[in-house]
Amino acid sequence: MDAQVSKLLDFLRFASISTDGAYAGDVKQCAEWLARLLKEIGLETQLNATAGHPVVVAKNTHKPGRRTVLIYGHYDVQPVDPLGLWTHPPFEPHIEHEVIFARGATDNKGQIMAHILGVQEALSRGDLPVNLIFLIEGEEECGSTHLERFLSEHREQLRCDIIAVSDTGMVGRGIPTFTYGLRGIAAMEIKISGPAMDLHSGIYGGAVANPITMLARLLATLHDADGRVAVEGFYDGVAPIEEWEKEAWAKVPGGDAELIKLTGVPRLFGEAGYTAREQIWARPTAEINGIGGGYQGLGTKTVLPGEAFAKLTFRLVPDQQPAAVIEKVRKHLAQHVSQAVRMEIKSGHGGEPYLMNPNSPGGLAAQRALKKTFGRDVALIREGGSIPIVQSFKKVLEAETLLLGLALPDCRAHSPNENFPIENFRAGIRLNQALLQELSAF
Amino acid sequence: MDAQVSKLLDFLRFASISTDGAYAGDVKQCAEWLARLLKEIGLETQLNATAGHPVVVAKNTHKPGRRTVLIYGHYDVQPVDPLGLWTHPPFEPHIEHEVIFARGATDNKGQIMAHILGVQEALSRGDLPVNLIFLIEGEEECGSTHLERFLSEHREQLRCDIIAVSDTGMVGRGIPTFTYGLRGIAAMEIKISGPAMDLHSGIYGGAVANPITMLARLLATLHDADGRVAVEGFYDGVAPIEEWEKEAWAKVPGGDAELIKLTGVPRLFGEAGYTAREQIWARPTAEINGIGGGYQGLGTKTVLPGEAFAKLTFRLVPDQQPAAVIEKVRKHLAQHVSQAVRMEIKSGHGGEPYLMNPNSPGGLAAQRALKKTFGRDVALIREGGSIPIVQSFKKVLEAETLLLGLALPDCRAHSPNENFPIENFRAGIRLNQALLQELSAF
Repeated sequence: MDAQVSKLLDFLRFASISTDGAYAGDVKQCAEWLARLLKEIGLETQLNATAGHPVVVAKNTHKPGRRTVLIYGHYDVQPVDPLGLWTHPPFEPHIEHEVIFARGATDNKGQIMAHILGVQEALSRGDLPVNLIFLIEGEEECGSTHLERFLSEHREQLRCDIIAVSDTGMVGRGIPTFTYGLRGIAAMEIKISGPAMDLHSGIYGGAVANPITMLARLLATLHDADGRVAVEGFYDGVAPIEEWEKEAWAKVPGGDAELIKLTGVPRLFGEAGYTAREQIWARPTAEINGIGGGYQGLGTKTVLPGEAFAKLTFRLVPDQQPAAVIEKVRKHLAQHVSQAVRMEIKSGHGGEPYLMNPNSPGGLAAQRALKKTFGRDVALIREGGSIPIVQSFKKVLEAETLLLGLALPDCRAHSPNENFPIENFRAGIRLNQALLQELSAF
Repeated sequence: MDAQVSKLLDFLRFASISTDGAYAGDVKQCAEWLARLLKEIGLETQLNATAGHPVVVAKNTHKPGRRTVLIYGHYDVQPVDPLGLWTHPPFEPHIEHEVIFARGATDNKGQIMAHILGVQEALSRGDLPVNLIFLIEGEEECGSTHLERFLSEHREQLRCDIIAVSDTGMVGRGIPTFTYGLRGIAAMEIKISGPAMDLHSGIYGGAVANPITMLARLLATLHDADGRVAVEGFYDGVAPIEEWEKEAWAKVPGGDAELIKLTGVPRLFGEAGYTAREQIWARPTAEINGIGGGYQGLGTKTVLPGEAFAKLTFRLVPDQQPAAVIEKVRKHLAQHVSQAVRMEIKSGHGGEPYLMNPNSPGGLAAQRALKKTFGRDVALIREGGSIPIVQSFKKVLEAETLLLGLALPDCRAHSPNENFPIENFRAGIRLNQALLQELSAF
């Protein structure tokens, strides 16, 4: 096993689970180890305390006239439950058929370590061609709670021309993938209440509105029969999909049949007039993430429940704004809810959608680096998920973000048996160097 | 404290909770105590083992030419959770302002003990005027699981002209109440499944049907806008409410305002064209007793869940049949469910509605006994709940059941601080004797 793989395995041994306070010590030790590594390879490194987990910042010696590139990543990882489904302990990295299995292997330790080792190679050759800033946080898996404030407070220190992030996916093994758009998100919880307590459905049923029934009727108004969101004004400002995007996406391997196989659904379902890929990458949704009310145990309990709730998230696309969408949905719900029940709405977190021009100088530079690294044409995609910090970068640092992820569809990020092929790790090390070369003169 | 109240308190001290195996010993001891009591007052008594809890049967010496009356009741009680809400321990009976507080005080120990003590008084005077059978089971609170089989196996021994049950309600304190109808019930569980596992709502949302959304849309088809059940043929065979019933019910104290106050709902809601009482007593319902799916914890989890479920019960009225209703609902659901998800339906327990003619000879005898006992006009009502064993009596023993309950609206049966006024207990002892006198010659 070579020194580079060995370095990644050391990184993977830290149980740097940021969401659970019991692991705060592991998170801190991981940050300290990372800061030492960045210092050892020759970077000026700071371990910055925050109100949460530390942020590691490292820089080479900046020279006037050079492009400044910020590489963002995170050293924290997701929890490991259910532990019983792991074939090997999640923090004892295991290599099988040239694939590394461990929590964080893909998300994000493998990908950020590839950047670090790429920089180390360039530094050892004496040809790191840019002013570099590493920004590696420890709270990505718990919402990057303190990072936007950190950006604001260190705006001058973090000033850069462009940002690179490897935390998105590749559409298939060996296929270089450039992600130029992400959906935003807006969260909401609806509670419907009726009787002051659970009632006997025999003694009262028929004369009192059932909160579950009323919630179901309300949720049923969210979409029309064809799967389009039926909230008035919901699609206001939604940018149409460009012709070149449709063409680029049609070339991406994997289609409807693969999606059906992967998910196990009897058939696909979504807004009429769009392909599945278009629906996921470029159209907004209204999704019910959870629902609950009344008796959920075994058998029957003849209760007419006092209340019921649903948790919703809306995935947003340019140029929808989370607050405006929440307001439109509130209005829709108020218009459609029965007067025989009470409704309470809580809005949750929001994040704006992200879209950049892949044919901008930075985007073209990233694509050249990807093509050079993998030796084949680059897939140009958007993703359906949300990375809210990318909008914070744009807002606070006023810089675009290049998303050059190395996660494969079966990497099992957030799930048991997370994995990262050594092939992708090595590609990441080459990609970092190709990218910084391209960005030195973009 | 007199001997009769004292006897009831002894009965109430048994923790005869039938639903929880941990109390099987208490249930058995209670049955043995009850059998001894019935023997002591002069009845020929059997303690019958079943596959579940014992059934107590007791008879006087039957004489040819007399009417045979079966009095049914139960010595088992509901669980006591939440225990913290009881102001006194549930199995240490407590008297306050002439009201007995204990689990089972109303349901059903107080009411069946009143019958037993009424019979004791008649026997001690030497004028019990009928052939009497007491049938007192220990599984009413867990579905009378083994009783119908017991009836079939002891059909000859239990042959009777009429049955009396005190396990229903009085519409108000001091108002004699005769219940001549009960709703039936049919239970069903619906499971909607889509993806083989929970999916990330960002990565897949928009192209895959959400099982919660599809379940909500399906449940929303169960009623029309006015609260009428929209299943084709659901109301087939539903008997119209008779004019005399409407008149009788209009005289019963308590109305919409009281129902709103009691339940705390913002307004009543039910099938258009009927009063709340008519909706509850004589119209069928489709009620969702529970729903669940996806993430129900705190905050947000952006999951597109693999499945969602709902538990339903339909309350039925004459002449609806549970099996036929389930079939119609199955057909309705199959017609309305999206093809983008899978549906699984499990039907649960069923019980036919019950309706007898209150102006039959038995009904009139019961009303005369009630009027004599309470000294005022009898309220003629139906109830919205279900007592499936009454249909078993009709089917197996071929006898009508007279429902002369003594439960007050605030008796808190099944809830903490269950109670029974001593006034009702004494009325029950008198009612038993008046009833048996009336039934000796009906």
